[in-house]
Amino acid sequence: MKILIVLAHPEMQSMNGAMFKQAIKTLEEEGHEVKVSDLYREEFNPVSGRNNFKTTYDAAFFKQQLEELHATKVAGFADDIETEQQKVEWCDLMIWQFPLWWFTVPGILKGWVDRVFAMGRFYGNDNIYEAGMFKGKKAILSLTAGAVESAYLKDGLHGDLYGVLRPLHRGILQFTGFEVLRPQVVYAPVRQTAVQREQELAQWGERLKHIFTEQAMPIDTY
Amino acid sequence: MKILIVLAHPEMQSMNGAMFKQAIKTLEEEGHEVKVSDLYREEFNPVSGRNNFKTTYDAAFFKQQLEELHATKVAGFADDIETEQQKVEWCDLMIWQFPLWWFTVPGILKGWVDRVFAMGRFYGNDNIYEAGMFKGKKAILSLTAGAVESAYLKDGLHGDLYGVLRPLHRGILQFTGFEVLRPQVVYAPVRQTAVQREQELAQWGERLKHIFTEQAMPIDTY
Repeated sequence: MKILIVLAHPEMQSMNGAMFKQAIKTLEEEGHEVKVSDLYREEFNPVSGRNNFKTTYDAAFFKQQLEELHATKVAGFADDIETEQQKVEWCDLMIWQFPLWWFTVPGILKGWVDRVFAMGRFYGNDNIYEAGMFKGKKAILSLTAGAVESAYLKDGLHGDLYGVLRPLHRGILQFTGFEVLRPQVVYAPVRQTAVQREQELAQWGERLKHIFTEQAMPIDTY
Repeated sequence: MKILIVLAHPEMQSMNGAMFKQAIKTLEEEGHEVKVSDLYREEFNPVSGRNNFKTTYDAAFFKQQLEELHATKVAGFADDIETEQQKVEWCDLMIWQFPLWWFTVPGILKGWVDRVFAMGRFYGNDNIYEAGMFKGKKAILSLTAGAVESAYLKDGLHGDLYGVLRPLHRGILQFTGFEVLRPQVVYAPVRQTAVQREQELAQWGERLKHIFTEQAMPIDTY
């Protein structure tokens, strides 16, 4: 199978870096083909605007979705965006590896979505959710969270993790048709021992060996 | 009173630009003091990393929160970050004006939070939620949404808007102690007539005249 792993962390020595490397190693050993978007090392620019395009539909008034529809028709996306779009279109499974910063993805990953997930190319008025263009593809959020697991339960300090992740699961991934698998979460890695972190990495590797047999979470029932 | 308005939209002629200008005009006419962070025009860099700091705590391993704690002690934040932090600390009311992109703020605004809302400076282990450092300050999300209002109801296409906004309300604003007022939402401005858009702007202006008498939403009951 074909897997795209998107990494959004400034420090490759971090637990996120280790989870990223573990995924590449395991999936390649299993015979899969892996591509990556290592947003920090690639110095991806997350500011969405006219820089998303080589073409201009309306020079007097920038309406991003109209520019996206036009660029879809005339192959007008900027080279960095076209490259990322092709990777998403290519993959069977997309994994996002990131630290949960402020209840969501880091800005560099949010901006990657803003720029790459273009109207016309990745979705349309009649192509969302169950009719999404990426029907048949799977996606997983693999994240580290600063706090311990009990903080992310329904009556915990921060509330239910699935509520926290819902805008990502529902508003981006299911919106474009991805089947979303349950998230992989490492809680409070800075409080873990080296042995515990090795166990987390091993569990991630084990899960990935069987990832294509997993069932997706239902839409919007969590 | 002192108001900070943060704008995250690439096109100043947009409804977001108009709402931004309306807020400045109304609040200044009411005798308030207004500062702005116009992130696109100021070319704010939303990629969080070592560039947040003038100082270095650990050159061998970048752990952002440790760098933030150190920079808080030694006044080590980069000039662009220090400037933004002072504006947030200065204000009585903070308004975010943005388009709802992918169920949340644009990447440039997410990255502004990642970089500016630093541990030690804006929150600490004992200073979150009810004990947040910004207790007494108010905040409002003022946004445009692409779809119509019915899409953002509990059984609507996208689900309850308060669930969509919860990571922003809860995870950023209430987390740091802000009292959150109900959001100002313009639904589907591209489908509105010029007259309807003028009405939206007028309603926003009217609301802002009395904004300091509004009660905050309760924490986590929505």
